[in-house]
Amino acid sequence: MSHERVPVAVLGGSGYTAVELLKILLRHPGVRIAAVTSRQAEHVADLHPSLFGRLDLRCEPFDADALKAKGVQVAFGCLPHGTSMESIPPLLARGIKVIDLSADYRLKDPAVYQQWYKEPHHDAANLAHAVYGLPELYGDRIPGATLVANPGCYPQTAILGLAPLVAHRLVELTGIIVDSKSGVSGGGRTPKLSFHFPECNENFAAYAVGTHRHTPEIEQVLTDVAGERVEVVFTPHLVPMDRGIFSTMYATPTRAVTDAELLELYRDYYRGQPFVRVRTTVPATKDCAFTNYLDVCAKVVRGGKVVVLAAEDNLVRGASGVAVQNFNRLFGYDETTGLL
Amino acid sequence: MSHERVPVAVLGGSGYTAVELLKILLRHPGVRIAAVTSRQAEHVADLHPSLFGRLDLRCEPFDADALKAKGVQVAFGCLPHGTSMESIPPLLARGIKVIDLSADYRLKDPAVYQQWYKEPHHDAANLAHAVYGLPELYGDRIPGATLVANPGCYPQTAILGLAPLVAHRLVELTGIIVDSKSGVSGGGRTPKLSFHFPECNENFAAYAVGTHRHTPEIEQVLTDVAGERVEVVFTPHLVPMDRGIFSTMYATPTRAVTDAELLELYRDYYRGQPFVRVRTTVPATKDCAFTNYLDVCAKVVRGGKVVVLAAEDNLVRGASGVAVQNFNRLFGYDETTGLL
Amino acid sequence: MSHERVPVAVLGGSGYTAVELLKILLRHPGVRIAAVTSRQAEHVADLHPSLFGRLDLRCEPFDADALKAKGVQVAFGCLPHGTSMESIPPLLARGIKVIDLSADYRLKDPAVYQQWYKEPHHDAANLAHAVYGLPELYGDRIPGATLVANPGCYPQTAILGLAPLVAHRLVELTGIIVDSKSGVSGGGRTPKLSFHFPECNENFAAYAVGTHRHTPEIEQVLTDVAGERVEVVFTPHLVPMDRGIFSTMYATPTRAVTDAELLELYRDYYRGQPFVRVRTTVPATKDCAFTNYLDVCAKVVRGGKVVVLAAEDNLVRGASGVAVQNFNRLFGYDETTGLL
Amino acid sequence: MSHERVPVAVLGGSGYTAVELLKILLRHPGVRIAAVTSRQAEHVADLHPSLFGRLDLRCEPFDADALKAKGVQVAFGCLPHGTSMESIPPLLARGIKVIDLSADYRLKDPAVYQQWYKEPHHDAANLAHAVYGLPELYGDRIPGATLVANPGCYPQTAILGLAPLVAHRLVELTGIIVDSKSGVSGGGRTPKLSFHFPECNENFAAYAVGTHRHTPEIEQVLTDVAGERVEVVFTPHLVPMDRGIFSTMYATPTRAVTDAELLELYRDYYRGQPFVRVRTTVPATKDCAFTNYLDVCAKVVRGGKVVVLAAEDNLVRGASGVAVQNFNRLFGYDETTGLL
Repeated sequence: MSHERVPVAVLGGSGYTAVELLKILLRHPGVRIAAVTSRQAEHVADLHPSLFGRLDLRCEPFDADALKAKGVQVAFGCLPHGTSMESIPPLLARGIKVIDLSADYRLKDPAVYQQWYKEPHHDAANLAHAVYGLPELYGDRIPGATLVANPGCYPQTAILGLAPLVAHRLVELTGIIVDSKSGVSGGGRTPKLSFHFPECNENFAAYAVGTHRHTPEIEQVLTDVAGERVEVVFTPHLVPMDRGIFSTMYATPTRAVTDAELLELYRDYYRGQPFVRVRTTVPATKDCAFTNYLDVCAKVVRGGKVVVLAAEDNLVRGASGVAVQNFNRLFGYDETTGLL
Repeated sequence: MSHERVPVAVLGGSGYTAVELLKILLRHPGVRIAAVTSRQAEHVADLHPSLFGRLDLRCEPFDADALKAKGVQVAFGCLPHGTSMESIPPLLARGIKVIDLSADYRLKDPAVYQQWYKEPHHDAANLAHAVYGLPELYGDRIPGATLVANPGCYPQTAILGLAPLVAHRLVELTGIIVDSKSGVSGGGRTPKLSFHFPECNENFAAYAVGTHRHTPEIEQVLTDVAGERVEVVFTPHLVPMDRGIFSTMYATPTRAVTDAELLELYRDYYRGQPFVRVRTTVPATKDCAFTNYLDVCAKVVRGGKVVVLAAEDNLVRGASGVAVQNFNRLFGYDETTGLL
Repeated sequence: MSHERVPVAVLGGSGYTAVELLKILLRHPGVRIAAVTSRQAEHVADLHPSLFGRLDLRCEPFDADALKAKGVQVAFGCLPHGTSMESIPPLLARGIKVIDLSADYRLKDPAVYQQWYKEPHHDAANLAHAVYGLPELYGDRIPGATLVANPGCYPQTAILGLAPLVAHRLVELTGIIVDSKSGVSGGGRTPKLSFHFPECNENFAAYAVGTHRHTPEIEQVLTDVAGERVEVVFTPHLVPMDRGIFSTMYATPTRAVTDAELLELYRDYYRGQPFVRVRTTVPATKDCAFTNYLDVCAKVVRGGKVVVLAAEDNLVRGASGVAVQNFNRLFGYDETTGLL
Repeated sequence: MSHERVPVAVLGGSGYTAVELLKILLRHPGVRIAAVTSRQAEHVADLHPSLFGRLDLRCEPFDADALKAKGVQVAFGCLPHGTSMESIPPLLARGIKVIDLSADYRLKDPAVYQQWYKEPHHDAANLAHAVYGLPELYGDRIPGATLVANPGCYPQTAILGLAPLVAHRLVELTGIIVDSKSGVSGGGRTPKLSFHFPECNENFAAYAVGTHRHTPEIEQVLTDVAGERVEVVFTPHLVPMDRGIFSTMYATPTRAVTDAELLELYRDYYRGQPFVRVRTTVPATKDCAFTNYLDVCAKVVRGGKVVVLAAEDNLVRGASGVAVQNFNRLFGYDETTGLL
């Protein structure tokens, strides 16, 4: 490969998406990890003992000028929402591209952001030109982007699971049920009672019933795909496992369909997409674990409902893997580089 | 308590419902465990090392005469479906009452049994008078019964979760979604690849999509409650944990309702029922673990759908605990004896 | 039973030993839970949703006079070490007996306490008359006690596992290895990174190598049993499960022994003890889960070493169950009341 | 890289070491997977759904001539012991090199094999020239080998953990304790009650106490390192997690040592070895998960004992990763190719 390695920075290096991203980037032949920002430890191996001996890099405070001086061409934002939109503008102003893994640039309408995140959006200017980084749907827009809003973990399963159906208006666009289940790493690395091992181990429960912030992201994108308002009922649940999201979706077809028709529809829709696997059997999160694959299967059941099942690794496909997939499109690498 | 202890037998002592039942019975002041049948080991402590020092009893082969000779008044059937309906008739013929934990006497129509279990029903005579042992709905019929069909684990969450809504025709009776998640003990104790630790640990998936045998049981009982045909889409999933079932149900209200109305409706419906806990917050399987409680919460969400959340311990409430609850009603004990 | 129910208080109701204790006490026919102290919530069901509908009691701040006014006869201390020795003196002064589950009154020598806990002991007066509440070794002293120091979770497996050997001087008294493994609930309920689900799930590691505070407790009691200085190397490990401690112990026999001899020795030593199960096969934590049993098995292996294997439930046998066993001895109940 | 890809075969493709190996090989730039043998399914993706879309290869029956005809240069043996030594001779006879992951060629003395495996060794001729494939100790012998006996999972932690100590005679050579803990994948993929999810989840226990077959392998290699008979007491335990081995080892130093001395000793011993990480803090299996690293830390504790802690991923470092490390040495690739 004749590319020189692209110097990249990871902002907010202490969490699970950051360490997952660093591990992928270490394997990527077109990347050089130039900087990791964090105030929580001196060395990346102090943040993440698994990186001991693999990445000998000191953490540094966030400083846009320092990153520019190091020649950083793209920064991966692993900061919490709210903080993200404070840090990103100075980077963009200095010509550093950003792939933001937070939620700050996903919702196109600042009013919707404020409604769900309970704070005003502070960077409407950059929000206006941010590209929603779901490569299977918006892959053509990524190469020219300067700011990529990396998609949410739950939304990817819902959007890619339902897109073929709503694109063809094969199902009613309201009242779609998205019943999702996630491993605990999706909740982040900050210790909280609800993620304390003896609380969530051997336990299963729903949370944020009817109020989860990924709802508007799912609806925004599916509405865009359908060209008409899509409404979902989204219920997330916590599964006692590290990683993986499984979404079970229920939709009412507008005409009678068969399993064979659905299979053909999905295969057509995702033809040529290296990371969507259309399956004829029920997916499972473990089949996708530690990979960038999103597995999907659609079936017709008793009463005529269509059930769509989608599975992914929430840290790879749901966050850091798709971020690298976006990086590859942004910098002209083959979409799968570093991800197989 | 002036009762003498009732001599009971447990048929098919090797599985998880049997050991759970034995532990409950050991604490029950009105019971004497007179016999455990199994061909898989000599002593109950060989079947279940946790019973070492707690229950000094040799296993015996199934023999209706021998059980009668021991004075057994009631047998708990922990046999697989199919086998159950072979063993139960000779017991009933000898005047031994039966609480059957298998599926053999749950479906009132032998044709429906044959359709879902792929074999004919062999004991239509006893099926005709079997009482479906869900105490909250059919508690009055149990005292006079000779054969109690103990309800299924998944169905209890669906039935008790939805009964108040369908009884009041507050929701449309078809197209109800029952998305259920179960711990692995629900799959029984026979080793299989799908329950092999490294296969199901750190994994989440649906199974038997649209085809699970608990579907007709749910529909039969809810249809009885509603007085009109109820149809559900039922999707079970496997959770990497030992025990617990969580069902998330979605129904379309026939008129606008509020959370407060739903709360009142459920509280009224289950008033006086010691084992149904109507909650105002989201239930969790761990809150019910190792108890006979079934926790339920109903909410209205965006778009007006009603979401019902129900949780239970699949081995206690879902099988052996409710069997003892049925025993208590059958033999005149307080319903909660041995279960608190 | 002609006893009136003894009014008891639970001090520090928010943690895992407290909720475990409350569940045992709810089943105990000789107890009335008169008070639970905690500043963390208004109602015990807010602290522990599993108690919803089972214990309708408001939490109250700790106030020795208020507890006395309520007629509390015994308080179970579930407070952290350090806090415990502040709260207990005023109770004892008012004639309320205390069973303290913290470490504050276990080490007889205040200097040893200070060495391991890095703070001076503040209540040497009561320490002097505290009885170490390990019923199998010191059961006779408990009935007359006013302050019972409930034993530590790890130490019980080590002490009861090794006592028969050191009592008979069958092994060398120094260089004994105690390699212990514990479920995560042993670390308490306060959220910390090391107990955050995605950190400790799918992980196994040692901690506090050579420095764990249970070391002097193990040595103090075994030294007392042997009548001569016993020294152990104690290494605890964290197991990704909720509950259970398994200790593997290695000792060098002073003369050749056989498995049969060891079995006889252990059976003799624990004859009549209802909660120690001498096993001929390898114990497992799950066999003891949710019970007050401590299972033990001793074997001779290649090279002549004696290996002792001991298992218990760290929350029941290791804390709240043995506390109730002590309560039973203190108030004249059968030792097993509420614990079978 | 100018190498042509080496055509390789995987024998016995149905288990966990096989799928782990296939995933590593798919990333290896110097390998082409020419054949997978198995009679259990038609296609590798039927054996392992995670390979769906990643490896489009039909399984074939084992046939040495057919493999030769396909140009296979090296076969990785993932067959059970016993079967392995039947299949390997015909491959060697046809000039196909073999890296055998079974135990069949690890023990140099056929009599020792027979003693521990309870059957005679059938291939003494090839056993005589097999090279024990632990690259850190015998790396120089691998390039010229035709048959590499890939080391056992437990033994690698014990051997690499203790080698620096016994090589320098810093500890007594008998009575060394190796207390090991393994994730469940180490038990293979064949369903058995002991690996049934509800049996081993939330459970911890020892097994094969004093009788595990890895004992002679550990002793053989450490004896070779020390130049004098080494004897260990080896106790394996099962941890409720998928993967990872943690060994806690206890040895008696022959003279007083310090932590600093031990650190220096280990760093010297493993200098230049890319996959042994000498740590100053306690290792954890999760730090090594999905990698070929083996982490080790040695400490002096109270009473002067040396405690060595070693961690690895049992499927990667313990089996398939080290097999690829051996492949790299065998075919002249950089030792880390495909493994970082």
